[in-house]
Amino acid sequence: METRIFRGGRRAGGIDPGDRGLAYGDGLFETMRVHRGGIPWLDAHLLRLQRGAARLAIELPEEGLLRTEIATMCIGRDAAVLKLIVTRGTGGRGYAPSAHSEPTWLLSLHDAPLPMQEIDVAWCKTTLADQPMLAGIKHCNRLEQVLARREVAAANADEGLMCDAPGNVVSATSANLFIHDGDGWLTPEVDRSGVAGVCRDWLLRHAPARETVLGRDTVLRSSAIFLCNAVRGILPVRRLDAREWPASTEIRDLQRQLADAHPGLA
Amino acid sequence: METRIFRGGRRAGGIDPGDRGLAYGDGLFETMRVHRGGIPWLDAHLLRLQRGAARLAIELPEEGLLRTEIATMCIGRDAAVLKLIVTRGTGGRGYAPSAHSEPTWLLSLHDAPLPMQEIDVAWCKTTLADQPMLAGIKHCNRLEQVLARREVAAANADEGLMCDAPGNVVSATSANLFIHDGDGWLTPEVDRSGVAGVCRDWLLRHAPARETVLGRDTVLRSSAIFLCNAVRGILPVRRLDAREWPASTEIRDLQRQLADAHPGLA
Repeated sequence: METRIFRGGRRAGGIDPGDRGLAYGDGLFETMRVHRGGIPWLDAHLLRLQRGAARLAIELPEEGLLRTEIATMCIGRDAAVLKLIVTRGTGGRGYAPSAHSEPTWLLSLHDAPLPMQEIDVAWCKTTLADQPMLAGIKHCNRLEQVLARREVAAANADEGLMCDAPGNVVSATSANLFIHDGDGWLTPEVDRSGVAGVCRDWLLRHAPARETVLGRDTVLRSSAIFLCNAVRGILPVRRLDAREWPASTEIRDLQRQLADAHPGLA
Repeated sequence: METRIFRGGRRAGGIDPGDRGLAYGDGLFETMRVHRGGIPWLDAHLLRLQRGAARLAIELPEEGLLRTEIATMCIGRDAAVLKLIVTRGTGGRGYAPSAHSEPTWLLSLHDAPLPMQEIDVAWCKTTLADQPMLAGIKHCNRLEQVLARREVAAANADEGLMCDAPGNVVSATSANLFIHDGDGWLTPEVDRSGVAGVCRDWLLRHAPARETVLGRDTVLRSSAIFLCNAVRGILPVRRLDAREWPASTEIRDLQRQLADAHPGLA
C-alpha cells in the first residue's frame, strides 16, 4: 500500500499519536476510483469533501497542493482506488478543537476491487442513528457500519441494508440503494442518516430518479434493485431475504449510461 | 507528551496509516487520573474498557501487559492524566473487520487539569443521537461531542449540557450530570446515548442516587447540580442559562466522601 502523509502543506513522516482522527474519528474521507492515470469523478469527491469540512469546521489542505499530490499518486495506474483521509489534526483540549489546527491528510493507493456481476444482500439489525448534523457527509465516525459489516459476514452475504430506528431503509453499509417501482428509480433520503454518495448524486442528476422515504416492503416489492458507489459503480442485487430478482434491462441501460460517463465503472 | 504505542504484545514505532482507529474511529478509550504514582480507579476503567470491547468485538491487549505498562508510565507522577486508546488495529476490507486483528494501543501521559471550584454551563444545540448499540461505552466516535464543544467555546462557558432528540438531558460533553431534587440525587440514563462514566458509577454505588429520564425543566428546578468525571471529580455548577445555584452542602458532603475514596479527586 503506497501512502503519503501530510500536515498542512508539508509531507509528514507519520501519524501524530495525538491526532484527533485517531482519538475521536474527527475527520472526513473519500474513496475514489482511479482509471487510466486519473480520477474521473475527482471534482465531485472534492465537492463533497468541502461540504463535510464546512459542516464540521475542519480546515482542508490547499486545493492546488491536494490536486497535485492526487495526480502524482495516480500516474501510471490503470485501475486502482485512491483513499483520502483528512483529519482536524492535533491540538485542542479534549473534545474542544483548537481554533487553528493544521489538517492531517493521507493518500493511500489500493488495488481495484474484483468486478462483481450481481450481489446477495442481507438485512442488518444494526440501525443508523438519526443525526442530521452528521448525515450526508462522509465523516470518520463509522462504528455503525463496522458493526453492520460483521452481520453481513455472518450472513454470508455480499452487502447489507441498514434501516433507521423507525425501520425505513437508508443504504447499504458502503453503498447507496436504488429501487425501481415500475415508474422510475427511487433512493432513500440521506438528510437524517446515511451518506450522499458520489455515484448516487450522479444518478440523481442523470437518471429518472428521485429521493424519498423507503419502507422495507417497498424495497421487497420493487421490480429492480441495485446498490452503487463511486468505486464499484452499479451493482445489481440478485437476492435480498427470500426475494430474488431476474436480470433487469433498466439496470443494464443505466450501467451503459454510467460507463459512458465514467469508463472506470464499466 | 510521553506516549507509548503497541501492536498486540509488541512496542510499535508509530501509528500504522491504515489503522482502523484513524479510518473509522474503530476503537475505545479511557482517560484516567494518576495520583501518587498510581491510578486509584484503574480496575473500574479496565472493566468499562472490557464492556466496550465486548460490545464492539474488539480484541484487547493482554491484561497483565497492559497493567504493567500503565504502572510503568505512572511511576514518579504525583498528579497527571493517563489516556489509553485501544483500536481494532489494521486490516479487514473497508468497514469489514478482519477476523483476527491485533489491537493497536497507545498510552499517553498529560498534565493534570487545573482545579476548578465551580463551573458555568451552557445548553448545546448539538444533540446526542439515539444509538443503543453504542450507548454507555467509551468508543472513539465522538464527532457529536466535538461539535458540541465548539458551542461551549462560543458561549464562553466551561462545559455544555447535551440533550437527546426528544429534548431530555443526557450529559455534559465530557462529564456526567447529577441533580438533587430535594429527596436525592438523579442522573440521566445512558442506555440510548451518553457514556457510563467511572465517577458516575462510583456515585451510583456510594451516594443516594438513581438513574432516570431528566427533562430540562427538572434540571433547572433542581436544588443542587454538579458534573463529574474520573479526571476532575465533582464539579459544582454555578450557573446554567439564567439560573444560578448557591454553594450546596449536599455537594460538599459528596465531595468529601469522594476524596476519601479517591484522594486524587480531592
